[in-house]
Amino acid sequence: MASNFLYSSRDNKFILKEWLDTAKVLSFPRYSECYDLNDIDPIVDQALKVAKEIVAPTDDDGETVGVKLVDGQVIVPPSYHTVFKFLQEKGWGMHDPNEEGNMPSLIRTVVGEYFHGSNASFSPYIKLGSGSANLIVHFARKEDKEKFLPNMYSGKWAGTMCLTETSAGTDVGDSLTKAFPTNDPHIYNIKGTKCFITGGDHNLTENIIHLVLARIEGAAQGTKGLSLFIVPKLWVNDDGSFEPNDVTTVAIEHKMGLKGSATAMLGFGEEGNCRGILLGNGPDERGFAEGMAQMFVLMNEARHETGLAAIAAAQVAYNNAVEYAKIRVQGRPYTNPEGPRVRIIEHEDIRRMLLNQKATLEAMRALIYTNVYYQELANFSLDEQERKMAKRRMEVLNPLAKAYCSDMAWPLISDAIQVYGGYGFMEDYPMAKLARDSKIYTLWEGTNYIQSKDLVGRKWSMDKGKVFKEWLAEVSAYIQDNQGTPGLEEEFAELSEANTSYDEIYAIMNEYFVKNLKIVPFYSTRVLHATAMLYCGKLIIEQAIVAQRKISELGEDHHDYVFYQGKILSAKYYIKNVVPMINSIRDIIKKADTSAVEMPEEAF
Amino acid sequence: MASNFLYSSRDNKFILKEWLDTAKVLSFPRYSECYDLNDIDPIVDQALKVAKEIVAPTDDDGETVGVKLVDGQVIVPPSYHTVFKFLQEKGWGMHDPNEEGNMPSLIRTVVGEYFHGSNASFSPYIKLGSGSANLIVHFARKEDKEKFLPNMYSGKWAGTMCLTETSAGTDVGDSLTKAFPTNDPHIYNIKGTKCFITGGDHNLTENIIHLVLARIEGAAQGTKGLSLFIVPKLWVNDDGSFEPNDVTTVAIEHKMGLKGSATAMLGFGEEGNCRGILLGNGPDERGFAEGMAQMFVLMNEARHETGLAAIAAAQVAYNNAVEYAKIRVQGRPYTNPEGPRVRIIEHEDIRRMLLNQKATLEAMRALIYTNVYYQELANFSLDEQERKMAKRRMEVLNPLAKAYCSDMAWPLISDAIQVYGGYGFMEDYPMAKLARDSKIYTLWEGTNYIQSKDLVGRKWSMDKGKVFKEWLAEVSAYIQDNQGTPGLEEEFAELSEANTSYDEIYAIMNEYFVKNLKIVPFYSTRVLHATAMLYCGKLIIEQAIVAQRKISELGEDHHDYVFYQGKILSAKYYIKNVVPMINSIRDIIKKADTSAVEMPEEAF
Repeated sequence: MASNFLYSSRDNKFILKEWLDTAKVLSFPRYSECYDLNDIDPIVDQALKVAKEIVAPTDDDGETVGVKLVDGQVIVPPSYHTVFKFLQEKGWGMHDPNEEGNMPSLIRTVVGEYFHGSNASFSPYIKLGSGSANLIVHFARKEDKEKFLPNMYSGKWAGTMCLTETSAGTDVGDSLTKAFPTNDPHIYNIKGTKCFITGGDHNLTENIIHLVLARIEGAAQGTKGLSLFIVPKLWVNDDGSFEPNDVTTVAIEHKMGLKGSATAMLGFGEEGNCRGILLGNGPDERGFAEGMAQMFVLMNEARHETGLAAIAAAQVAYNNAVEYAKIRVQGRPYTNPEGPRVRIIEHEDIRRMLLNQKATLEAMRALIYTNVYYQELANFSLDEQERKMAKRRMEVLNPLAKAYCSDMAWPLISDAIQVYGGYGFMEDYPMAKLARDSKIYTLWEGTNYIQSKDLVGRKWSMDKGKVFKEWLAEVSAYIQDNQGTPGLEEEFAELSEANTSYDEIYAIMNEYFVKNLKIVPFYSTRVLHATAMLYCGKLIIEQAIVAQRKISELGEDHHDYVFYQGKILSAKYYIKNVVPMINSIRDIIKKADTSAVEMPEEAF
Repeated sequence: MASNFLYSSRDNKFILKEWLDTAKVLSFPRYSECYDLNDIDPIVDQALKVAKEIVAPTDDDGETVGVKLVDGQVIVPPSYHTVFKFLQEKGWGMHDPNEEGNMPSLIRTVVGEYFHGSNASFSPYIKLGSGSANLIVHFARKEDKEKFLPNMYSGKWAGTMCLTETSAGTDVGDSLTKAFPTNDPHIYNIKGTKCFITGGDHNLTENIIHLVLARIEGAAQGTKGLSLFIVPKLWVNDDGSFEPNDVTTVAIEHKMGLKGSATAMLGFGEEGNCRGILLGNGPDERGFAEGMAQMFVLMNEARHETGLAAIAAAQVAYNNAVEYAKIRVQGRPYTNPEGPRVRIIEHEDIRRMLLNQKATLEAMRALIYTNVYYQELANFSLDEQERKMAKRRMEVLNPLAKAYCSDMAWPLISDAIQVYGGYGFMEDYPMAKLARDSKIYTLWEGTNYIQSKDLVGRKWSMDKGKVFKEWLAEVSAYIQDNQGTPGLEEEFAELSEANTSYDEIYAIMNEYFVKNLKIVPFYSTRVLHATAMLYCGKLIIEQAIVAQRKISELGEDHHDYVFYQGKILSAKYYIKNVVPMINSIRDIIKKADTSAVEMPEEAF
């Protein structure tokens, strides 16, 4: 069945209004004329209302109606059309991110969280439209911007990103899709097949603008030879009329989840008549092209968005599990086995599973929104140093946001299933679908191993290691400076120990880079988790300190007292039950175990 | 799609012929006339052939045809009938476990592993028949044995266990199903509704013999007042003719997986005409009845079997992932990024995920088969002391087998999905179904928390703690005695450290029992995992020592050399990458974190 979309805005509001320096962001000229802190509540409340009342009721249709490929055209559930139109008309849909008065990213991320949570199959149709339009903003010629952007931002046309091919997934540099010059230096003939294209075809819009990676004849091998092209499903003439563009939907996938999202295999130029518009310049004299760097503008956003979607799925699972635990009566208290039957939320192991979900979700949400906060600084701060600093932080946080959040969704939703007992396995309850839907997030936009390789390979060494060391120094300084915070002494001591362990992990891994390169990738997934846990620990204790202050200001009778108490307990739980895994990862990495690389292939 | 049933018998044969003292088991009078070690290969090979050629091809039908409730009768896929008949005729189906010449449990467990792995939906139809017949063997009157057993063992009739009710799952003692006396002191009128009954209805057999827990009027509340009844779907008259028995299939569940397995809600006595035959005696003067203790004969077996089924699912996922990794070409070597493209099995992170699956599966299989080994000793050893010792070991191992194996299936299959990349999410590949199917195992036959409560509550304190302490002393002595085994020095040192950590866990938890009872259940799931990891570490290093010996005997040119090398590397991986978590669990438990119990309910 459709997920029962239970969601609260409280943690989002805490993040935006009580924890992050959103006031500073809204003071930037980009936002200051249109937004102040008072705008957060009405927008967030309205978004949640729309998610609940308009989006969530269509969630079931992805499962029951699904997407169908009929005569070469993908048909989405009829209700998706209504929602798409509604969101577009009310300003929640595709939009020009650079338009005056546009919603700040920090707030729009909250909106995105609710839309992912209320219908995870539907939201990519919108997100990819905005994302691919953004590539056109960044890299297209003026006339192409004028041709495509207004219709994309109005929701008349959708957009996609086309990277993957059947034999080029993780290694997109092996793409076989080719681009051949035509008489017009900006226009190429595209020939190839792309697969796993999210929203690759659908009938929500009259046209779909594909952003396609292809190799111009003669360009270098690998990712560095790839160029990016605007390839409309229907070619748009200068007078606005359409022509067929030889883009065909070969098939759609039969997936474990996200069944309302069309994942398509697309043929480009099967008849030799597919035209694409080159973004930016063609390959240089070495054959190096700009496509991959361009695509990363969208890719980084998509990775971050994946982490957000994973949180949203796990949050819906948690919220349902809490409600279920509050009404389900089963068993008697552990400390009073002859006592009266109790609701399962009174059982310690149920509470452990619920708090594990709550604490980890809040820690991950803190990570995601911190990343967006830096994005705001990087884009709109007036201080160049601050913009640069924020960009450096995003380099570190982006792979954590994508991989840690998506890796955790699977075990967290498993905890939620466990709270439901046998009902967790039944499709009439919301858990099964949430588990099925969420599995994609560890895989798309670069598998989570690729994220760990990005962290340990690229980000650690970026600018001779300065980018990462600066980030780590900031974390360490915060932990050092706040040792002995009353009421959180044990938690800071724990973080400090984890920080020392992490420093060791960093030192050992750097040694391995020199002396034992082959085991670096063997450990990099665990290093990414350790990095994320350390940072999440830092962020969640920051939040606990805010909560402490709020309690002392507002007193225990305030209606929000339990919320703040819950924030402090989330921090305590996360730091005492999750963060210590960093020490364990350090111990494991120290051992320099080479069993996996020694394995003869035939022994697997 | 159906799982691609790839399976090897090599590890099973290693366990039975090279590691466990199967020769001793086969020397017991129960088996000695009919079996010796030479019988293992032909039976195991034949079972694997049957699983591959007869059972596996029907796996898909559970998904595509499914089970349907038509006019009150559950219809299973037609192909299930063929398989059911085939297995029964060839001696692989329901059987009298006490019959002369019957297959030893150690060998039959291998058969069960293959049947679970080749069609996890189908195998419970058989397993529950044998299990419920076994209750009749143990507890029924002679005339009832004669009436029911031959037809159950021949596969003419099936069997089920009926415990759960909608409001009595984990706490079966709250069952509302009632039994009212009739003129015949052995026959009661049954009235109530049971749910989540695996194989609760189907058209594979002409009759289904339900074993139903119900409370005789006036019996005590809770589990101690429950009695067990034989409740045939069709009442069997003394002349063998049938009469309706007012057992109705109210509904079947729409599940996330195991879609070929009918999970039914059954009404007993909706019209007041349902008769059940009491097993054993009615309640005593205190109102205490025998049903729950009787049911545990089947329940313990079912729990163990659940662990086995979880392994089988994860093993099929692993085997497919290995095959995929061997052919899938993607990316270049980490240490040579400009080199030629390689198959993904050459990537270190893929090897990590594969070895994590292989090592954990072998460790868990060692646990499962050790439990069966003790079962053989407990049942058939001529030495009373040995029988008693083996029974004590089983008390400890049974909750580990159920909970650890089923808890691990979910993350292990997630690793297998990750090896497949995006294809792991596609239902056209086998991973998605395996993940969906396997989720039930953490839930049924007592959720995994119940297993941990059984371990930490009941088993730790059994016979004043002697049962557990004796088990732990045996583990410790083995680790102590084998320190310094050449080639495994580091691994034994690691185990020794883990053993010390475990001793601390045990001591701390026992302190909590006295001083802080509320946090005992908060930690018991983690304690169960630590217990299982310690034991699995011990077992897998035992296996590594056998493998070392084999290598020194057979030399490196022997065709089995890589297998033994793989066994040693599995042990190294498991002990260096999994077992250290025990230290971390110790650290976490030490903290006595009470965040989850402190949480105000409204803060969740």
